[in-house]
Amino acid sequence: MDMLELIPGLLQRNDSKIVMLVADGLGGLPQQPGGKTELETARTPNLDELARRGICGLSIPVKPGITPGSGPGHLGLFGYDPLKYLIGRGALEATGIGFELQGNDVAARANFCTLDAEGKISDRRAGRIATEESAPLARKLRAVKIPGVEIFVEPVKEHRFVVVFRAAGLGDKVHDTDPQETGVPPLAPKAHDAASQQTANIAAEFVDQATKLLAGEKKANGLTLRGFAAKPALPSYEQVYGLKAAAIAVYPMYKGLARLVGMDLVGQAQTLGDQVDMLHANYAKYDFFFLHFKYTDSTGEDGNFDAKVKRIEELDAVIPKITELKPSVLIVTGDHSTPSMLKAHSWHGVPTVLAAEHCRTDACQRFGEADCVLGGLGQFEAKYLMSLALANAGRLGKYGA
Amino acid sequence: MDMLELIPGLLQRNDSKIVMLVADGLGGLPQQPGGKTELETARTPNLDELARRGICGLSIPVKPGITPGSGPGHLGLFGYDPLKYLIGRGALEATGIGFELQGNDVAARANFCTLDAEGKISDRRAGRIATEESAPLARKLRAVKIPGVEIFVEPVKEHRFVVVFRAAGLGDKVHDTDPQETGVPPLAPKAHDAASQQTANIAAEFVDQATKLLAGEKKANGLTLRGFAAKPALPSYEQVYGLKAAAIAVYPMYKGLARLVGMDLVGQAQTLGDQVDMLHANYAKYDFFFLHFKYTDSTGEDGNFDAKVKRIEELDAVIPKITELKPSVLIVTGDHSTPSMLKAHSWHGVPTVLAAEHCRTDACQRFGEADCVLGGLGQFEAKYLMSLALANAGRLGKYGA
Repeated sequence: MDMLELIPGLLQRNDSKIVMLVADGLGGLPQQPGGKTELETARTPNLDELARRGICGLSIPVKPGITPGSGPGHLGLFGYDPLKYLIGRGALEATGIGFELQGNDVAARANFCTLDAEGKISDRRAGRIATEESAPLARKLRAVKIPGVEIFVEPVKEHRFVVVFRAAGLGDKVHDTDPQETGVPPLAPKAHDAASQQTANIAAEFVDQATKLLAGEKKANGLTLRGFAAKPALPSYEQVYGLKAAAIAVYPMYKGLARLVGMDLVGQAQTLGDQVDMLHANYAKYDFFFLHFKYTDSTGEDGNFDAKVKRIEELDAVIPKITELKPSVLIVTGDHSTPSMLKAHSWHGVPTVLAAEHCRTDACQRFGEADCVLGGLGQFEAKYLMSLALANAGRLGKYGA
Repeated sequence: MDMLELIPGLLQRNDSKIVMLVADGLGGLPQQPGGKTELETARTPNLDELARRGICGLSIPVKPGITPGSGPGHLGLFGYDPLKYLIGRGALEATGIGFELQGNDVAARANFCTLDAEGKISDRRAGRIATEESAPLARKLRAVKIPGVEIFVEPVKEHRFVVVFRAAGLGDKVHDTDPQETGVPPLAPKAHDAASQQTANIAAEFVDQATKLLAGEKKANGLTLRGFAAKPALPSYEQVYGLKAAAIAVYPMYKGLARLVGMDLVGQAQTLGDQVDMLHANYAKYDFFFLHFKYTDSTGEDGNFDAKVKRIEELDAVIPKITELKPSVLIVTGDHSTPSMLKAHSWHGVPTVLAAEHCRTDACQRFGEADCVLGGLGQFEAKYLMSLALANAGRLGKYGA
């Protein structure tokens, strides 16, 4: 039995509040063997205080050795087994730009490409055309009309944009039209199953009309479609946890992921300070709050150890404004590690602290990798964090008599 | 989704080298409560140095409390879930004597037995006949001829031998012919499914001819067949990990297990020194090296604590000749524990160290059970060791965007 099947039958309601603060890419590595990680280097008196009164551990985002993207990383933290619940590429791309997918949508990632006189691809990325040039072209494609289908075209960056087809009964099992090589024309959209034939037909008509609209362009006179995907079927936080949940995030990707599990988007925060203000303003209205802090990841991706340290200290500084609300359960964790030494997401366990009245405190004195590996939560798969949160919030009854 | 389904889609190739040194039955127990295990007693400066710069943990071969045989023990280390991928008894016995099974083979473990004048079994093990007597008898059975079937008969030890039938389309769902009691005749081979009827017929004919060939014998004038099994369908290291893999082992069983996952057998090593020489000689040709050291297990099985300590020190002494190759990832582990106090395989976690540039070193100072239980790898199922190895070798890309 999956946790999401087990939990609904055990739920008991109460007035507890759960706050999950996700510092993206939180975990790290030392700059030299035996040194300290970014988190261990940072001065974090407030997180250390949490570590002392809470219970610590290392979260394994997916499975040992597996490095997750943001989608699986967050699904795990939200309690959805990231190997069972998949978000298709097109759906994730749409989510990442803040496009809220509906149940009748099929989204695809689109690339502008350059076609030669014979219609063969000469550049699969249209010379990595600048966003300022490509965005108006993407919007121009909104002129495509197909009867019975609502079509959305949204610019992303450089040669990339998103296309969403909205109509009843569209399957998403359609092959990519990108042949992955030059010197050949784009492939025709091909359906894998009967339900997707209509989608393939719509996609073909879209490409046809769009190519005509792009005819005069030098670089971006063609397009390919990849990663066709419907909105993933994720049960909501309300359904599986009985939680009215709010997401307080700055970036569209994380707002989008939260919407996929049915969280309400709260406020228009631009800074961590704003986010904590929103938490205060909405505290009475929700049971669960997801706060997302991006910069521990982006500084790690930049390979900037010192900047990541500073961002962690910035995070630490807002902790008192959260703890003054006295949430029943406060969790600080990350969706994966992003060591600045690797300039990328990694597989390493993610420092995690859960503070709650009955959490059974461990011996951890500092919030850092070396302490967390010896913590009371041990090394646990991220997908178990929500059941621990619910238990500590007094929201889970007994399993079996 | 199984790890072997997940990993192939994430692979990225590079020139890294992974060395996995398996000390069979490595884990142990102290001679009295509070004492030191064999590994903790041994003087192991080189393994300790690895523990200091690597990341340690305890490997759980199958699941907590489960003691594995050599087959599941190694399958786990090789990354094949030992509860999902099974090696039938007959196939393991054939593998153990160095018989390389083909796709069309069905192998069975055979026992010589003693039949009375009425054809009833009077001794199920033919008086535990000595190998010197039984081996020529087994070879005598090679005279059995069945049209359309290639038959192999290989001596094992005392009353035990192996029979392999090779023909297209043979099922392996055939009941044992050993009735597990005396005073009754051997059972006729009985098929569980249609595909195995031909196998049952062949087995019956084999038993018939063999019994005639043994007619004059006093002890071994009959035989029983058990554990009918085809070659297990294991995807290869190349298929699932993209690794060109070499096995450098001394004993047939471990060579055979490595062959089942598609490793090349390299060299004819007789000693650990030979094995390390082979590693050097073949280092450029492969991505992955499995080195197997038997004597930590056999001394444990003998109940000889001091001998096991010595064997561990022998193992420690070759570590510098491995580390001088600077493998990207070096793992030292075991397929299970064999505490000399128990004179047998056991369920206890197996000390494991993984050394690699970005392994996130832990606080372990000594390679031993007490340190490893607090190590950064935690207690992990052996089946995750390969994904950790690949990640540390930079061979695994991101899961999801």
